[in-house]
Amino acid sequence: MPHVALPAGQFGIVGPLVQFPATGRVLSELAETLLRGPSPLTPAEREMIAAHVSHGNECQFCAGSHAAAARALLGAHASIMDGVLANGAGGPVDARMRALLTIAGKVRVDGRSVTAEDVDAARAAGADDQAIHDTVLIAAAFSMFNRYVDGLSTTIPPDPAMYRPMGEQLATRGYLATVA
Amino acid sequence: MPHVALPAGQFGIVGPLVQFPATGRVLSELAETLLRGPSPLTPAEREMIAAHVSHGNECQFCAGSHAAAARALLGAHASIMDGVLANGAGGPVDARMRALLTIAGKVRVDGRSVTAEDVDAARAAGADDQAIHDTVLIAAAFSMFNRYVDGLSTTIPPDPAMYRPMGEQLATRGYLATVA
Repeated sequence: MPHVALPAGQFGIVGPLVQFPATGRVLSELAETLLRGPSPLTPAEREMIAAHVSHGNECQFCAGSHAAAARALLGAHASIMDGVLANGAGGPVDARMRALLTIAGKVRVDGRSVTAEDVDAARAAGADDQAIHDTVLIAAAFSMFNRYVDGLSTTIPPDPAMYRPMGEQLATRGYLATVA
Repeated sequence: MPHVALPAGQFGIVGPLVQFPATGRVLSELAETLLRGPSPLTPAEREMIAAHVSHGNECQFCAGSHAAAARALLGAHASIMDGVLANGAGGPVDARMRALLTIAGKVRVDGRSVTAEDVDAARAAGADDQAIHDTVLIAAAFSMFNRYVDGLSTTIPPDPAMYRPMGEQLATRGYLATVA
């Protein structure tokens, strides 16, 4: 049972976004800017970083919904997402994503653990300042979203098959549709 | 040295807020909404929660600046902030703040560690749904801000005395002045 009253039938973060609209609006704008706004990283790459961090934090709703969004965006290459969930930075990704997933995994635990060598490796693989910045902020932001979802003890969908249409909606309509 | 190019002479989160204005604007709006918007918690209480979480995460810039903001807001009672930094929920606060600081400290580590008993104790001390929600989200948000500041290896002020005017500005002008 959630720790505060939330609308029935709204799972995960959707409940508090709807119930507390002032913060709901700005949190949705943050997700839209971070995951869909201008960036050298594709929306699919950014959703994979979000799902990787959420999986590491064992936030079931966030990992399920963002992995589903990544799969919808990846289309025929959806299995890349499953490889990243299973093996993290050792998944079936290119050298730049490998370096960025490594940085994201460190930010998840403690921002101070990111080294100059981690950043040099990302640059050597083609990441620029914006890509490194966006990776750090996505990993930091999901360290927030995961704690928000689990700290309020929100509910998860009764059937994991429900993540797929959620992911398709996030892929096609983005993060402002919920609070519009 | 920061991991990405940042404007010289801008410490902590201010550098990335200025350098990356699209996310800077929405992060500032989140801080303003959370720490200054309508809430059953005073701005001073919310800044104390932010400083408590940042201190636990050993994020020197965030702890220094938000403790300074709390002291400016507390005025003659500024020493309460120092008691909370030293003793957390065991600091010189009332029963409601004690229960909310306990919840915030758990969210900082893992949202799942907040129990129904923690929430019941906060309610018994007078916290309503909005106060519990705001506490969870402030603790989650500073789990993000701390990782953003440290994950980019931003610089800290050369003199700790510099936090005081920062705190006074945050107390009187809020969080939108930097990005306006």
